Amino acid sequence: MKKLLVISAHSADFVWRAGGVLAKSVEEGAETLVVCLSYGERGESGELWKEDPNRSEESVKIIRKAQAEKAADFLGTPIEFLDWGDYPMLISDERIAQLVKIIGNFEPSVILTHTAKDPFNPDHPLAFQATERARLLSCGAGVASAFKNINPPAWYSFEPHQPEICEFKPDTFIDVSSVFEKKKEAMNCMGAQKYLVDYYTELGSRRGNHARRISGQKQVQYAEAFQSMVPRITDSIF
Amino acid sequence: MKKLLVISAHSADFVWRAGGVLAKSVEEGAETLVVCLSYGERGESGELWKEDPNRSEESVKIIRKAQAEKAADFLGTPIEFLDWGDYPMLISDERIAQLVKIIGNFEPSVILTHTAKDPFNPDHPLAFQATERARLLSCGAGVASAFKNINPPAWYSFEPHQPEICEFKPDTFIDVSSVFEKKKEAMNCMGAQKYLVDYYTELGSRRGNHARRISGQKQVQYAEAFQSMVPRITDSIF
Amino acid sequence: MKKLLVISAHSADFVWRAGGVLAKSVEEGAETLVVCLSYGERGESGELWKEDPNRSEESVKIIRKAQAEKAADFLGTPIEFLDWGDYPMLISDERIAQLVKIIGNFEPSVILTHTAKDPFNPDHPLAFQATERARLLSCGAGVASAFKNINPPAWYSFEPHQPEICEFKPDTFIDVSSVFEKKKEAMNCMGAQKYLVDYYTELGSRRGNHARRISGQKQVQYAEAFQSMVPRITDSIF
Amino acid sequence: MKKLLVISAHSADFVWRAGGVLAKSVEEGAETLVVCLSYGERGESGELWKEDPNRSEESVKIIRKAQAEKAADFLGTPIEFLDWGDYPMLISDERIAQLVKIIGNFEPSVILTHTAKDPFNPDHPLAFQATERARLLSCGAGVASAFKNINPPAWYSFEPHQPEICEFKPDTFIDVSSVFEKKKEAMNCMGAQKYLVDYYTELGSRRGNHARRISGQKQVQYAEAFQSMVPRITDSIF
Amino acid sequence: MKKLLVISAHSADFVWRAGGVLAKSVEEGAETLVVCLSYGERGESGELWKEDPNRSEESVKIIRKAQAEKAADFLGTPIEFLDWGDYPMLISDERIAQLVKIIGNFEPSVILTHTAKDPFNPDHPLAFQATERARLLSCGAGVASAFKNINPPAWYSFEPHQPEICEFKPDTFIDVSSVFEKKKEAMNCMGAQKYLVDYYTELGSRRGNHARRISGQKQVQYAEAFQSMVPRITDSIF
Amino acid sequence: MKKLLVISAHSADFVWRAGGVLAKSVEEGAETLVVCLSYGERGESGELWKEDPNRSEESVKIIRKAQAEKAADFLGTPIEFLDWGDYPMLISDERIAQLVKIIGNFEPSVILTHTAKDPFNPDHPLAFQATERARLLSCGAGVASAFKNINPPAWYSFEPHQPEICEFKPDTFIDVSSVFEKKKEAMNCMGAQKYLVDYYTELGSRRGNHARRISGQKQVQYAEAFQSMVPRITDSIF
Repeated sequence: MKKLLVISAHSADFVWRAGGVLAKSVEEGAETLVVCLSYGERGESGELWKEDPNRSEESVKIIRKAQAEKAADFLGTPIEFLDWGDYPMLISDERIAQLVKIIGNFEPSVILTHTAKDPFNPDHPLAFQATERARLLSCGAGVASAFKNINPPAWYSFEPHQPEICEFKPDTFIDVSSVFEKKKEAMNCMGAQKYLVDYYTELGSRRGNHARRISGQKQVQYAEAFQSMVPRITDSIF
Repeated sequence: MKKLLVISAHSADFVWRAGGVLAKSVEEGAETLVVCLSYGERGESGELWKEDPNRSEESVKIIRKAQAEKAADFLGTPIEFLDWGDYPMLISDERIAQLVKIIGNFEPSVILTHTAKDPFNPDHPLAFQATERARLLSCGAGVASAFKNINPPAWYSFEPHQPEICEFKPDTFIDVSSVFEKKKEAMNCMGAQKYLVDYYTELGSRRGNHARRISGQKQVQYAEAFQSMVPRITDSIF
Repeated sequence: MKKLLVISAHSADFVWRAGGVLAKSVEEGAETLVVCLSYGERGESGELWKEDPNRSEESVKIIRKAQAEKAADFLGTPIEFLDWGDYPMLISDERIAQLVKIIGNFEPSVILTHTAKDPFNPDHPLAFQATERARLLSCGAGVASAFKNINPPAWYSFEPHQPEICEFKPDTFIDVSSVFEKKKEAMNCMGAQKYLVDYYTELGSRRGNHARRISGQKQVQYAEAFQSMVPRITDSIF
Repeated sequence: MKKLLVISAHSADFVWRAGGVLAKSVEEGAETLVVCLSYGERGESGELWKEDPNRSEESVKIIRKAQAEKAADFLGTPIEFLDWGDYPMLISDERIAQLVKIIGNFEPSVILTHTAKDPFNPDHPLAFQATERARLLSCGAGVASAFKNINPPAWYSFEPHQPEICEFKPDTFIDVSSVFEKKKEAMNCMGAQKYLVDYYTELGSRRGNHARRISGQKQVQYAEAFQSMVPRITDSIF
Repeated sequence: MKKLLVISAHSADFVWRAGGVLAKSVEEGAETLVVCLSYGERGESGELWKEDPNRSEESVKIIRKAQAEKAADFLGTPIEFLDWGDYPMLISDERIAQLVKIIGNFEPSVILTHTAKDPFNPDHPLAFQATERARLLSCGAGVASAFKNINPPAWYSFEPHQPEICEFKPDTFIDVSSVFEKKKEAMNCMGAQKYLVDYYTELGSRRGNHARRISGQKQVQYAEAFQSMVPRITDSIF
Repeated sequence: MKKLLVISAHSADFVWRAGGVLAKSVEEGAETLVVCLSYGERGESGELWKEDPNRSEESVKIIRKAQAEKAADFLGTPIEFLDWGDYPMLISDERIAQLVKIIGNFEPSVILTHTAKDPFNPDHPLAFQATERARLLSCGAGVASAFKNINPPAWYSFEPHQPEICEFKPDTFIDVSSVFEKKKEAMNCMGAQKYLVDYYTELGSRRGNHARRISGQKQVQYAEAFQSMVPRITDSIF
């Protein structure tokens, strides 16, 4: 059963960093879900604050939610928002329990989220920590227990803005050539400056170049890069 | 095209460390090849030297070759021997060129060999270095060149005797349950003390336990563990 | 003065991971103490929940406590339980203070606990963090202070279930051959499936094999592996 | 605009670990500020507790404050005290907000603080974490936002007591020869045993030796060592 | 005295990876020198072999030399070629001695070369090793010796094609905005496919984006990234 | 059987870096041997070349040999010289075989040598590599073999000049207080500038301070620091 859960600190992260693999998974018949821990209303909504510095935070949230939902539609995925705030995002035992419940209900086979380290963002590592803890609490110890537990999902970090400084070392490149137009459409929903769309289009193309160089697979035009957090279990070396 | 090349420092390493994945690959229709850089005649033939300390090195080679060929037969794989010597194994530019030629001719899609580091064995890291260099010289820079070049094969280290001390961190577990009896038969060809067969049977079982715990895939009884040296290029996150 | 403190996240961990060194230390006249932060009642009591999924958590705690006490008896060590809960274990300033008090009273010369990282268990790294912090608060800065402070104990991690994935790199192997029968008896108290006793018996035997290979000390039949967290101070290189 | 902020866990750390670079920065016309998160009254005031174990913590704070202010005067820098306590220092969301405000008001171009890891001190890593988080919350994401944000300051760790064990790897040596006498005067204010002044004088001399050996710059007599936490942006390779 | 030495495995590497900093250094009055260990005639001359697979290696060398000299002219730097061959490049004691002599004569204050690790290229790590050894043999131990020795130059790795996989972690970004047009002209000399010029133009722009995000220095349009191999000695923290 | 072998790249290294532990081992009745791979005649004999730049290399060797023998006498240890040259030291298969023979004859229980990495010295890492390889070739694979093999000795790196930059992380501190006067006498034989004796005396004192802080063992006045390369096998955790 293919079920992909993407946990995004702010309401735009999933589009830039995992939009391709979301659309690709939908294309191959998987069930997907995006969970945005926050709207990124305070720190990640540059264009909206530039337009009107006096805007209320609530109004920014509404706009960000609408943009993210539209982007999710283009990618073909359901989306949920937890409204945990940003700059600062605060994590509590109750919020971890909330995430445990979502994971337990969805029973993902794969989870994607941020990197453990990000010296450019205070919220991304918190999203990582919340995911790490909630995933473990959902799975239990692999034995019968006092609570429902699910099969341990595979778990990857998606690509941060400055990969080397975040100690991101990609070990998995997904060919997203066939869905890259959808990713572009989704990115264009985000109300960000055009340069960001260019930036991530170019990143997709560069990761495609890397994937071709690594493997000789000439058909890869666009790729997204991921780093696995747990080993892969498979029945073939190929 | 599935083509698996296993590069083994001594004539027994491929059996203990990759016998399962060799048999599994044969089972799924892949073409396989084992290359033994040496017979391990001086340092790795304990039982033979114990039986008769006055035996000649040549006679040890002959016995080791026969054992390895018999094991390869049980696994269903062709095998070649380069006779580079052991304790010490010596690497030269000519020997690298010899290995380049073998890789160029076989055009593997996957290569398995030792770890880069092994504080218990002087030859294993040399096998790693020779493989690393020969693989790169076979592939070229991904552009047209003065010599034939092949698609870059995937490349993994197989499990060393003391994994943590060798800085082996497995990221890929292959379910070899369906072929483990074949691996046992192959191990029994090696003329080693019974405890070594028990040791690696138990290792397979333990890695199976780990694989189940990591993934919840309850069908895995025996597994072999590998560490990838280059990223994986694929078109699905599942 | 030889005083060994073992801090165990759940009530069974100390048996599997440090039972040998506990019995060995008792044998050499050391004072020992085991502190279980939780009974592991919710997530680590597979057999009990399998027998009766409707059992109360309190009844599980009572059984787990009795099993652990019996195992501690076989090993010859006192044991205490803090009942901090599991899945999730929650740490607070008060709980740290409780642990500081225990360490300050016992004045251990060696502390053993879990690894800093464990991608398979949410409570083990918490036990590590609590131990790290409580140990430092007990010792102070090596100068006179507003509170009683003790000599800094040596400090080791014991072996986790999947050592490489937990970044466990053993640097100290203790020969526990002379007490391994006691460890087996202790393990047999835990009410777990037989395969776990087999698993850890085999681990002891494998670590014994590793210890022999590392040192040539042929008398080591069973060993336990540890990783030191602080340097060792000694007056001989031998 | 040259503005240096030094965040010190206890009221003496800034003198031993960054006294030279503070004086040097003042000498080159920079604006500087020292923030002491605590007085180190409980755990870091050895001489005062030795003199009189019955002294009150409040009286220790008063003495420590006076000593630190006198040292700061010698170095030529303003100083502030947050009184967060020590052994244990406790961090809260409010305290982080307090630090964010200080950073936002001062707008440093460089921040110095402790290392991320210190197996000899429970408060130093907390100072690191508080600084890391407050710095990020002050800077925002580099776009317009709901709050004032400042340019991201450069950020370094200063040298801990046992550098290798704290995983401190210096990448920047500052020549403080011209101000080392001032650092000595500042150190002599701290009321510590004479050996500590000797220790840090010798450390300055040793780091000067290292700096000369690294670069051939023979004029360096005394240096302080730092490790950068973010890359350096410059317009010359020299 | 500003003197920059760039050691390039093949005759094009210096253009893609350090063209900006070369032109920038010339602009600020530094003396520069490029040393190409090989022409990259066999493995790195894709377009030439594509045009005519029957071309001689000698003719490829002549064309590559002319292209590199023209690019060096645009950047304003002298260039030398050692003709050590590629695929495979072979290093010998004599070749090290040749490089020692070049370094001793030029007396660089900064050396740039490849990374220590490159799983995509067999020659780049050799260039690193040769540079590492020749640099140390040129500098001696910082004391009087049997041979002329020079001040130890600063030493950086420039950016490889797949930075994360090569374990490249940039710690120094040089703003090359003012000379980027010159770099483009130099890149256009290399006879490579247009996409490579686009690739490295985009890389310069992306590294400029990173530099702005790290520092808030909005004027940086294009940057090149480097990783220092030895600490920096300076007399100011700013 | 306590047998200590110290492998020193140049004829002075063993005094500065392991003089204390040599004298301490002699004091506890161990058999010791120092092997100097080179006299350090070209690059490490600063004072001699300063006195007379026209001196012959042979005359420098003679003086260096006499100094080292005198120092060894003070420490109470035999010493041998292999005369492999320095700046550059060159390693060959024959030289490795020479070292294998020495190790095989002496049958050390502990080997001390340089660190694997030293960005300030071209010969130290070669000494490490030669030792690593020769030690493994001496020990074999722990089974009967075509050659005599010895029990694997414990193996440590001693402290380099700039420990952090050489990635030296000490895990073992030896209390050498009782023999430090002998080490001083030995250091005074080396004909080096007085500051070097001061430097290493101070290092001994500083490492003593560290050892006291780590363990609370107040009697340690002077210590030497080492990093173990293989795990320690013991029968007690204390």
